[in-house]
Amino acid sequence: MGARMVVALGGNALGKTPQEQLRLVQHTASALADLVEEGYDLIVSHGNGPQVGVLNLGLEFAASEGVSPHMPLPECDAMTQGYIGYHLQQSLQNELLKRGISRDCISLVTQVVVDPEDPAFQNPEKPIGSFYTKAQAERIAQEKGYVFKEDAGRGYRRVVASPEPMKIVEIDTIRKLMEGGVIVIASGGGGIPVIETETGLEGIPAVIDKDRVSSLMARELNAQRLLILTCVDQVSLHFGTPEQIPISRMSLQEARRYMAEGEFAPGSMLPKVEACVKYVEEGPAGAKALIASLDQAREAAREEAGTVIYSNC
Amino acid sequence: MGARMVVALGGNALGKTPQEQLRLVQHTASALADLVEEGYDLIVSHGNGPQVGVLNLGLEFAASEGVSPHMPLPECDAMTQGYIGYHLQQSLQNELLKRGISRDCISLVTQVVVDPEDPAFQNPEKPIGSFYTKAQAERIAQEKGYVFKEDAGRGYRRVVASPEPMKIVEIDTIRKLMEGGVIVIASGGGGIPVIETETGLEGIPAVIDKDRVSSLMARELNAQRLLILTCVDQVSLHFGTPEQIPISRMSLQEARRYMAEGEFAPGSMLPKVEACVKYVEEGPAGAKALIASLDQAREAAREEAGTVIYSNC
Repeated sequence: MGARMVVALGGNALGKTPQEQLRLVQHTASALADLVEEGYDLIVSHGNGPQVGVLNLGLEFAASEGVSPHMPLPECDAMTQGYIGYHLQQSLQNELLKRGISRDCISLVTQVVVDPEDPAFQNPEKPIGSFYTKAQAERIAQEKGYVFKEDAGRGYRRVVASPEPMKIVEIDTIRKLMEGGVIVIASGGGGIPVIETETGLEGIPAVIDKDRVSSLMARELNAQRLLILTCVDQVSLHFGTPEQIPISRMSLQEARRYMAEGEFAPGSMLPKVEACVKYVEEGPAGAKALIASLDQAREAAREEAGTVIYSNC
Repeated sequence: MGARMVVALGGNALGKTPQEQLRLVQHTASALADLVEEGYDLIVSHGNGPQVGVLNLGLEFAASEGVSPHMPLPECDAMTQGYIGYHLQQSLQNELLKRGISRDCISLVTQVVVDPEDPAFQNPEKPIGSFYTKAQAERIAQEKGYVFKEDAGRGYRRVVASPEPMKIVEIDTIRKLMEGGVIVIASGGGGIPVIETETGLEGIPAVIDKDRVSSLMARELNAQRLLILTCVDQVSLHFGTPEQIPISRMSLQEARRYMAEGEFAPGSMLPKVEACVKYVEEGPAGAKALIASLDQAREAAREEAGTVIYSNC
């Protein structure tokens, strides 16, 4: 068995239409196949922001015209796990076949438990779906109990919470497949958010950050590496200023200090660094987290590109 | 390890809205848990006719109004695998927990290979999506190359082929999980139809019959039982006439004779009996196929209800 690596793919790298996604995902498949060639057993998660957004938009519109039923958010998440998982799985199977690598690859429907008492539910901030006028938003809020917020002058949008992932329901199956040499695509879109009730699991409208859930998967699976693929080459200090300094290596202590100094943008690089720090803190001895661009996945695995976050104690 | 049983669930038993599906699926989960209690290792497939219909309708409407992108049929199938799989998986997990049974349960994104030379592609018959006027249908046919047929005076609908399933792409992973004691939900909606091309797998618009693919899974997994759950209690001769005779047991020879005599309705009981016959012919020694109502799953497994199809040679 090779070393285990959890790879988190950004939803933005997947495209907004099926045609675009199928094209972009071939590039992703090539990066993943590089990592397989590097000797890693992969567990892959992916975002679904743009995809669940588009799906939700279409289905909300159709529902508002009475054409098809209203589809709740957890069900939309489940749909994107099927949809994105299918494209990723097929493209990776094709790429591995092309390279003469015999490895099975599968996408799993994955639920992730969140705490209904998570403070995020008190202050939902993640916008989803269509824009509405104030009057429309107030009417829907009254009808369905949704929370709306004004979105940068563009109108009102529903906002949902982004709670902390507590537990991956299907983790034992993921582990079993991983140990059997299968490349597993799991926790897509951060996972379908569920809460534990007296009668069992129940879906809840929320959005789970895919980097956080990838960090959790990496810890629960004792993975040796967590690789977060994004659209920048490296984590930087003074990002977006003339003084921008890319970071190749960053110890836990340094990462914590930079975070405290406000170096990383909330909603952008900060959650990625946080996810990495938590994984390196709680992961197996020698655990390293990597943040890199999709184009440099192989080099990042070799620590020749991207940013490495490590523990020096 | 218990005996292996492939269970095929009808899409009609799942409901048209998410709320209805979540309610109905609890009933299904109870039937499946009964079968687990009877000692079977389950591999579950399900139809998706009504669900993919509703989804396709909503997304086609939204696409026609420019709200969201057009979503091809294989991608819609993948979405229903996520959507239905999620509900089934969660309900079954909850039901098993309630009964104190510790078994993992997972839904897999599953592709099924079909032959592009399958004669079904010459004569597509499976209607999907919205109704159109003749003029609309002709315009879309020209634009997208779809085939339309007049549907019983209600307008024109797109028709797609229902080819024979040749191979389940993810069968090795299904087997691995089954052997590891996991309840597997796979080949939902008959599977995502794909063809093998020079560059690998590629989705193709088609609809695969879920009973046929369940029969194929049962054969490839050497399952001891194939159970097709439907809305009637038993297979009958002279169905729908005053002379209707329910059948409790039917040998392969009898089944073949009844089929030749036109006893079973095409598009209804005939494909189920055909799927059963093929499985019993090619399945392991002692293979038995069962057709029964969802309410009598446990009794059917005991051969106390439903129709048993067996080989007497």
